[in-house]
Amino acid sequence: MSKVAVIMGSTSDLPIMQEAIDILKGFDIEVEVDIVSAHRTPEKMFEFGKTAHEKGISVIIAGAGGAAHLPGMVASLSPLPVIGVPVKSRNSINGWDSVLSILQMPGGVPVATVALDGAKNAGILAAQIIGSSDKCVLDKILVYKQGLKEKVIKGAEEVKS
Amino acid sequence: MSKVAVIMGSTSDLPIMQEAIDILKGFDIEVEVDIVSAHRTPEKMFEFGKTAHEKGISVIIAGAGGAAHLPGMVASLSPLPVIGVPVKSRNSINGWDSVLSILQMPGGVPVATVALDGAKNAGILAAQIIGSSDKCVLDKILVYKQGLKEKVIKGAEEVKS
Amino acid sequence: MSKVAVIMGSTSDLPIMQEAIDILKGFDIEVEVDIVSAHRTPEKMFEFGKTAHEKGISVIIAGAGGAAHLPGMVASLSPLPVIGVPVKSRNSINGWDSVLSILQMPGGVPVATVALDGAKNAGILAAQIIGSSDKCVLDKILVYKQGLKEKVIKGAEEVKS
Amino acid sequence: MSKVAVIMGSTSDLPIMQEAIDILKGFDIEVEVDIVSAHRTPEKMFEFGKTAHEKGISVIIAGAGGAAHLPGMVASLSPLPVIGVPVKSRNSINGWDSVLSILQMPGGVPVATVALDGAKNAGILAAQIIGSSDKCVLDKILVYKQGLKEKVIKGAEEVKS
Amino acid sequence: MSKVAVIMGSTSDLPIMQEAIDILKGFDIEVEVDIVSAHRTPEKMFEFGKTAHEKGISVIIAGAGGAAHLPGMVASLSPLPVIGVPVKSRNSINGWDSVLSILQMPGGVPVATVALDGAKNAGILAAQIIGSSDKCVLDKILVYKQGLKEKVIKGAEEVKS
Amino acid sequence: MSKVAVIMGSTSDLPIMQEAIDILKGFDIEVEVDIVSAHRTPEKMFEFGKTAHEKGISVIIAGAGGAAHLPGMVASLSPLPVIGVPVKSRNSINGWDSVLSILQMPGGVPVATVALDGAKNAGILAAQIIGSSDKCVLDKILVYKQGLKEKVIKGAEEVKS
Amino acid sequence: MSKVAVIMGSTSDLPIMQEAIDILKGFDIEVEVDIVSAHRTPEKMFEFGKTAHEKGISVIIAGAGGAAHLPGMVASLSPLPVIGVPVKSRNSINGWDSVLSILQMPGGVPVATVALDGAKNAGILAAQIIGSSDKCVLDKILVYKQGLKEKVIKGAEEVKS
Amino acid sequence: MSKVAVIMGSTSDLPIMQEAIDILKGFDIEVEVDIVSAHRTPEKMFEFGKTAHEKGISVIIAGAGGAAHLPGMVASLSPLPVIGVPVKSRNSINGWDSVLSILQMPGGVPVATVALDGAKNAGILAAQIIGSSDKCVLDKILVYKQGLKEKVIKGAEEVKS
Repeated sequence: MSKVAVIMGSTSDLPIMQEAIDILKGFDIEVEVDIVSAHRTPEKMFEFGKTAHEKGISVIIAGAGGAAHLPGMVASLSPLPVIGVPVKSRNSINGWDSVLSILQMPGGVPVATVALDGAKNAGILAAQIIGSSDKCVLDKILVYKQGLKEKVIKGAEEVKS
Repeated sequence: MSKVAVIMGSTSDLPIMQEAIDILKGFDIEVEVDIVSAHRTPEKMFEFGKTAHEKGISVIIAGAGGAAHLPGMVASLSPLPVIGVPVKSRNSINGWDSVLSILQMPGGVPVATVALDGAKNAGILAAQIIGSSDKCVLDKILVYKQGLKEKVIKGAEEVKS
Repeated sequence: MSKVAVIMGSTSDLPIMQEAIDILKGFDIEVEVDIVSAHRTPEKMFEFGKTAHEKGISVIIAGAGGAAHLPGMVASLSPLPVIGVPVKSRNSINGWDSVLSILQMPGGVPVATVALDGAKNAGILAAQIIGSSDKCVLDKILVYKQGLKEKVIKGAEEVKS
Repeated sequence: MSKVAVIMGSTSDLPIMQEAIDILKGFDIEVEVDIVSAHRTPEKMFEFGKTAHEKGISVIIAGAGGAAHLPGMVASLSPLPVIGVPVKSRNSINGWDSVLSILQMPGGVPVATVALDGAKNAGILAAQIIGSSDKCVLDKILVYKQGLKEKVIKGAEEVKS
Repeated sequence: MSKVAVIMGSTSDLPIMQEAIDILKGFDIEVEVDIVSAHRTPEKMFEFGKTAHEKGISVIIAGAGGAAHLPGMVASLSPLPVIGVPVKSRNSINGWDSVLSILQMPGGVPVATVALDGAKNAGILAAQIIGSSDKCVLDKILVYKQGLKEKVIKGAEEVKS
Repeated sequence: MSKVAVIMGSTSDLPIMQEAIDILKGFDIEVEVDIVSAHRTPEKMFEFGKTAHEKGISVIIAGAGGAAHLPGMVASLSPLPVIGVPVKSRNSINGWDSVLSILQMPGGVPVATVALDGAKNAGILAAQIIGSSDKCVLDKILVYKQGLKEKVIKGAEEVKS
Repeated sequence: MSKVAVIMGSTSDLPIMQEAIDILKGFDIEVEVDIVSAHRTPEKMFEFGKTAHEKGISVIIAGAGGAAHLPGMVASLSPLPVIGVPVKSRNSINGWDSVLSILQMPGGVPVATVALDGAKNAGILAAQIIGSSDKCVLDKILVYKQGLKEKVIKGAEEVKS
Repeated sequence: MSKVAVIMGSTSDLPIMQEAIDILKGFDIEVEVDIVSAHRTPEKMFEFGKTAHEKGISVIIAGAGGAAHLPGMVASLSPLPVIGVPVKSRNSINGWDSVLSILQMPGGVPVATVALDGAKNAGILAAQIIGSSDKCVLDKILVYKQGLKEKVIKGAEEVKS
C-alpha cells in the first residue's frame, strides 16, 4: 500500500504541517513524519532522499520556511514526486522567500509547490497522486470534493435566510 | 496505460507548453493536447474537467498566463492531480499574476505549481506522478536524473581543462 | 427595476462584502446575495453566470480571496458587467494574490476591479453603472458625493478650531 | 443614444488606448476621444469631469501611466462610472505605479480598473455597462463572446491536427 | 515671513501628519493646517492649489494614503515646491500604493517624496527649503543636526558602559 | 544668486542626470556639476557635503543607482535641501533598490525623492525651491507650467482632427 | 588575537544586534560594540571606518534599518570585510528597504549581507571568517554545526515518539 | 597560502562568475573553479562541501540562479565562509528568486550574499576575508580602493572640463 512521507525542516513547522498529516489520515493513507533539516542535518536529508523510493514511500511532502531548500534538495535526490509547502517563518519577507525558493526550481528537478502555509492542500494533492492509480483513493477524493460543495451550499442557505 | 493531458488557454502558450509534451514523449508516456480556455470556452473546460478521470487520463497539466484560472478551475472540476504552469504573457506584471493566481489556491483544491514558464518540469513531474505507482516509469526517471548528472560532470571537465 | 447580485466565495468573505450590500441598500437598489464558490461549487457558479442576465440582474459584484477566480469566471460566463472585489484572505501574500488574479484578465473578458477589500466602492460602482442609464439613481450618486464633501469640510473645521 | 468618452493623459498613450476605441466602434457605440492631463491641464480635466454626465456621456474610460491620477480624479468629479486603464509608461516600475495609483482608490470614489495596458477590456466593459440597460448592446456582447469561443475551438482543432 | 501649509486627505491622517506640524513649530516656522481631499473635495483642492503661492505660503506639505493623488494634484496646480508624505492607510498594500502614486510623477510636475509615514522628515525638508534662502532658519537646521549627533553619542556611551 | 549643485555617483549616470542640468539652465539657474561617489570617493563626498552651503549653493541634486547612498549621505552632511534621483543601474532589481535606498531615510535626515530616472523633475523641483523665495524664478515656473498645458491642448487638437 | 566590531545605527537596533554579540562571545571571540549612525554621526562613522583595520579589528558587523547606509559606507571606508544586517525598522516597507540598500552595492565595494534581522548569522559568519585562518576557531565552528545537527535529531525523535 | 574556490551550478553561469575569478587573479590569489550543481550533482556537492576546508581552501564563492540552493547547501556542509552570488537566470522573476533563496538563510547557517550578478564583489569580498588575517592582501585591497577613487576623480575632471 502507498505511504506518504511528511518531512519538515524544524519542529516549529509542525503546527502548519500537521494539516497535511490530518487530511492524509482522513483518507486512510499511511503517513510517516520526520524532521529533516537541509541546513542542519544534510546527511540525514541525503540518506532520506536517496532511499525513500525503496522504502515504500510514494509521495514526499516537504515543508520549510525562509530560504527553503528542503523540498528542492529532496527532489534532487529522489525520483518520487515531491510536494513543497512554503512555510511563513518568523523573519520571512512576507513569505516571498519560501515561495520563490521552493517554486522556481531549474529545468530537470520539479517541486510541486502549493500555497503559502498550504499544508492541507499538500495532503490532498498527495492523495490525488495516489488516487491517479488507485481507484479506491480516487473515489475518496470525489467524496471529499462533494463534501466541500455541500458545506458551501449550506453556508449559502444560512446567508439567504 | 497512463495518459497525461496537456491543456493550455491559448495557442500562443504552445511554444512554452511544447516542452512538457516533448519530455513526456521522451518518457514514452501518452500525451493528449488541447486548447481549453477558462475564460473563452468555459463549457469546454467544464466538460473536460468533469470527465478527464473517466477517459484514461492520470494527470492534467494546465498552462495559462495573466489572471490564470485554467489550472485552478480544472482542479476544482477533476479529482485528478493538476499541475499548473504559470506562463508569462504579453502584458504580465513580470509573471507575478500567473504565478500567484495558480499557486495561491484555497484549502481543499490544490494545484501542483511549477516555476514560471516551467513546462519542462511540469512534464517531469507528471512522469514522476505516474512513476510513483509504475516501476518502469520510475526507472526512467532514475535514468533521466543520471543523465542530468553526467551533463554537469562533462561541463565541469570542460571548464577545468 | 435594476437588481445587483452580490456573490462571494465563502461565508468568511461576508464581513467585507456586507459593505457593498449596505451601500446599495442605501441607494434603494435591490440586492441579491449568495455564496458561490468557483472552486467548491463550480456547477452552481456556472448556472449562476449563464443565467444572471435573464433574471433581472444588471450588475454582478463578486468578492474572493487568494487565487481569486470567481470574478473572472463569472465574467467569462455572463454578458453583464462584473465588479471584482479582491478580499485579503488568511494566508494571502499581502493581498497581491487576489488583486492580480482578479485584475489581470486576458483580452476579451474584463473584470471591473476595485481596491483590496474595497466592497464599499464595488457597491458605489454598481450604483453608478445603473445610474448611467437611470437619472434617478444618478441623482442619488450626486447627493452621495455631496455628502462626502460636506463630511470633509466639517472635519477641516474641527482641525482648524 | 449612449456615448463613451475615451480620455488619456498624453498622446503617447494613444497606441494603447486605440484598442478601446476600436472595440467600441465594433459595437457601434459612439466614442468621443480627448487628451486630458490631470497634471498638465487640471482645469480642462475639471471642466470635463464636472460636465461629462450632462453631455450625453454614459461611461468614461481614462488611461494614464506612472503616478496615474487621471482616472481617480475624473471619478472624483463625475457621477458616471469611470474605467481606469493602467498604461505602462517609459520609466514605470514594471507597471506597479499605474496599477496601484488607479486601483487603490479610497472608500467613496471607485474606479473600475482593468489589466495593465488593458484598453481593449476597458472598451468591452464600457459596452457591458451600456448593455446592462440596453438589450441591443447586450446581444452584441453575447455574439462577441460567442466569437471568442469559436476562435479557441478553431485553434484547438489546428493544434490537434 | 515664510509659511508652510500642511494639508492631508482626511482627519485620520492627522496623527501621522502632526509630526510635520510639531517639527516646524520647533523651528518657529508658521504652519497652516487644513483637510483637503483630492477625491472628496476636488473644488477646495483646486482653489487651494491655484492660490497658495499668493497667500504667503512658501512650501506645501501634503499627506495622503492609498491611491494618493493629493500631493501630485496640488503640485499640478501650484508653482510652489510640494512635499508628499505617503501615509499607510487601513487597506494599503503595505504602503506601496501611496508611495508609488506620490513618487512616480510624470516629467514636468515633481513631488518631493519622503519616506512612508515620514511626516517628520517632511517638516524638516520644508524648513531646509526655507533655510536655503533664510540664514536664520539654516542655522537652526545646523543646530538641529548637532542635536541628532549628540543624542547618538550619548546612546553610544550608555551601550559601552 | 542661487546656485544648484548636480552631483552623481558615476559618469555613467550623466545621460540621465543631464536632464536636470538642461532644465535648470532653461530657467537661467547656475548649475555646478560634479562626480562624487559615496562608495569610491567618500572623502570628496564628505568635503562636498560639509561645505556646500558655504559656497553659494542653495539646493543639491544627487543621482545614484543600486544601493544608492549618495543622496542620503549628502543630506546627512549638509543643512541644504537635497533632492535624490533614483537611477536604474545595470544590475538593478527593477529600480526598487535605488528608489528604496533614497526614499526610506530615517527620521531627522530627509531626502526629497523624485521618480525613477526622474532627473528632469529634480531640476524643476530645485527651481521651485529657489522660486519659493525668488519671485522672478517663481514666475518662470508659472510660464513653464503654462507651456506644459499648451502642449497638451495642441496634442488634443491633433487627436480630434 | 582577532576582534570583531559590532556597530549599529541606533540603540533601538540593539535587541536585534545582541544576537551577534552573544554568538561571538560563545565562540570566545572578542567583541567591540558601538553606536555609529551614518546619517546622524557621519564624522564618527568616517573615523571608525578609516581606522578600524589599524586597531586590531578583523571583521566589522554593521546593522541598520530603512535606507540602511551604514554597512555600505563603512565598507567604502575600510579594507576589512563588512557584514551587513538588514534590520526591519518601524516604518519599513516589509524590510525590502534595508535589504536592498545593504545588498545591492555597486561593483568594487561589497557588503556581506545576511538575512533580514539575521544578526545571529552575522556573528557566525564573522567567526567563520576568522576561522578561515585560525584552526582553533574553525574547530569551534565544526562543533557548533554538530550541535545544530544534534538538536534536530532530538526534535525528530520527539516528533516520532 | 590561501585559496578560493569559485563554484557555480551550471556552465551558463560562467560569464557572470568569471568576474570573481578575474578579480581574485588580479589580487594574486589562487582560484579553483568547478561546476557543482545542487540539484543535478548533489553527491558531488556533498563531497565538495564536506572536504573543502581540508584541501587548503579558505573561502568558497558559490553562484546560482532561480531557486538557488547551492550557496546555502554548501554553507550547510562546510565550516568555511561561503559567499553567495545570486545569478539572474533565464526565467527568473526579476532576480528575486535567486536573491531571496540565497539571502534568507535560517539561523545557524549564514551565506554572505552579494548583489544580483555581483560576482566581482564576491571576488573582492573573498580577498578581504583573506586580507583580514594577511597583511599583504590587505595592502592590495587598500591599493585597489585607491584605484577606484582615482578613476572617479579622473571622470569628474572630464565632466567639468
